[in-house]
Amino acid sequence: MPEVHTLEQQVLAKNDSLAALNRRELSRRGVLSLNILSSPGAGKTRVLERTIADLDQSVVCQVIEGDQATEQDALRIRRAGAQAVQINTGNGCHLEADMLASGIKILQPRESNILFIENVGNLVCPALFDLGETRRVVILSVTEGEDKPIKYPYIFHNADLLLINKIDLLPHLEFDLQRCLDYVTTVNPSLMTLCVSAQTGEGMDEWYQWLQKERAALTPSEPCEEM
Amino acid sequence: MPEVHTLEQQVLAKNDSLAALNRRELSRRGVLSLNILSSPGAGKTRVLERTIADLDQSVVCQVIEGDQATEQDALRIRRAGAQAVQINTGNGCHLEADMLASGIKILQPRESNILFIENVGNLVCPALFDLGETRRVVILSVTEGEDKPIKYPYIFHNADLLLINKIDLLPHLEFDLQRCLDYVTTVNPSLMTLCVSAQTGEGMDEWYQWLQKERAALTPSEPCEEM
Repeated sequence: MPEVHTLEQQVLAKNDSLAALNRRELSRRGVLSLNILSSPGAGKTRVLERTIADLDQSVVCQVIEGDQATEQDALRIRRAGAQAVQINTGNGCHLEADMLASGIKILQPRESNILFIENVGNLVCPALFDLGETRRVVILSVTEGEDKPIKYPYIFHNADLLLINKIDLLPHLEFDLQRCLDYVTTVNPSLMTLCVSAQTGEGMDEWYQWLQKERAALTPSEPCEEM
Repeated sequence: MPEVHTLEQQVLAKNDSLAALNRRELSRRGVLSLNILSSPGAGKTRVLERTIADLDQSVVCQVIEGDQATEQDALRIRRAGAQAVQINTGNGCHLEADMLASGIKILQPRESNILFIENVGNLVCPALFDLGETRRVVILSVTEGEDKPIKYPYIFHNADLLLINKIDLLPHLEFDLQRCLDYVTTVNPSLMTLCVSAQTGEGMDEWYQWLQKERAALTPSEPCEEM
C-alpha cells in the first residue's frame, strides 16, 4: 500500500515540523523537557510523583499527562505538588507534537523548570513521534522481563536515558539484570542506564543528579544548583 | 485531517474483510483461535508455555508469535512442545488479519486444535484490528497497577476473557484487586475474569476449563474431552 506509506510520511513530516517549533520554543524559554516512555504500568507516574516530592521546591516541575482515558494521573501529579495538564488521546496510541504545543500554552513553563511529558503507556508507537523534547527517557520495570530491549528495539534505540525501575522486586523475580544490560548495549551502546526503585527510593539520587546536569547544560549562564 | 480518517477507515475495512475470511476458514476447520493481548511483559508467552506443558498431549496447541523483532518467543514456545511461527512486525505495533492468514497457511491447524495468536505487546493498537479469531483474551499483570482497565478501556471493552496474571507477586505489591475488578466491571460488565499465576500455576486450572469449554462449543459433534 504505497499511498499509506506516503500519507504516513506526510503525517510524520507535519509532526516533525511542529516538534521543531516546540524545541525552539522550549529552548528559548530555557526549559528542560523530557519525553517519558514505557509500557503501561512500568511506573512512569510513580517515578514522577517521587521526583516531584524529593526535589521539593528546589526545582519547579510541570507535567503533561498522556492517557487514552481518565484524569487519574494528572490528579496524582497535582497531589504530589506539581502543575499537570491531562491529555486524553481516545483511540490514539501516542502523543504528538501539537499536543505538547497545547500543553506548553497552558503551563507556560519558565527558565529552569522541568517539563515532564508522560506519554501514553506504549513501548512501540511513541518511538516514531518526536515531540520537540530535550531528552527521551525510557522506563523499563524488572517485572517485564529482561528481553524487552531486543524485542522492542526502536524505543530503546532512540532513548537518551533508561531507568530500570522496580528493582525492589528483584528478589521475587527471575530477572537477569546483567543480561538485560547486555541487551540494552546491543540495541543502543551509548544508552545511559540507571537502576531505581520509585517505591523505596533506591537509586533515585542518580536520576536527580542526571536531571540537574541536563538542566545546567541548558542554562549555562545560571549557577548549577546543589540538590 | 479527514483524508487520514478515510484512509484509516479503508485500512480497517480491508483488514476486517480479511479477518472475516480467516474466521470462516478457522470455523470450517473447527479450530479454536485466541487473540492474546497485553502490555509488554505481562506474561503472555509464560502463560502459553505453562498451558502447553500442562495440557501436554491432550490438546494440540499451535502458536503464532507477533513481535517487533527477534525469534525469542517462538523458540520458547517450541521448547515448551508446540509448533510456532514467528512474525516480526518491524515498526508495526500490532498484528493484522493478513498475518494470521500467513500463519494459518504455514501451521495448517486441524479440528480441535487450539491456535494461540500472541499479539505484539501493546495495550492500545491491537484493540482496533480484528484478526478473525474466535475469542480475545487480555492478560493484565498485577505489577501494572489496578487502574489499567479504565486508562486503556478499548482493549478491555472488546475482550472475552481477562487473565489477571502474576498473582504470586501480590504480597509484595500495593495492588488493590477489588478495585481492579470494579474498574473492569465499569468498562466491560460481562468480561469474565480469572486470577492466575503462570509462575506457580495457581488458578490455571480454571483457564484450562475455559479453553476446553470454548473448544467443545466449536465442535459439538465431538465428545468433550476430559482433562
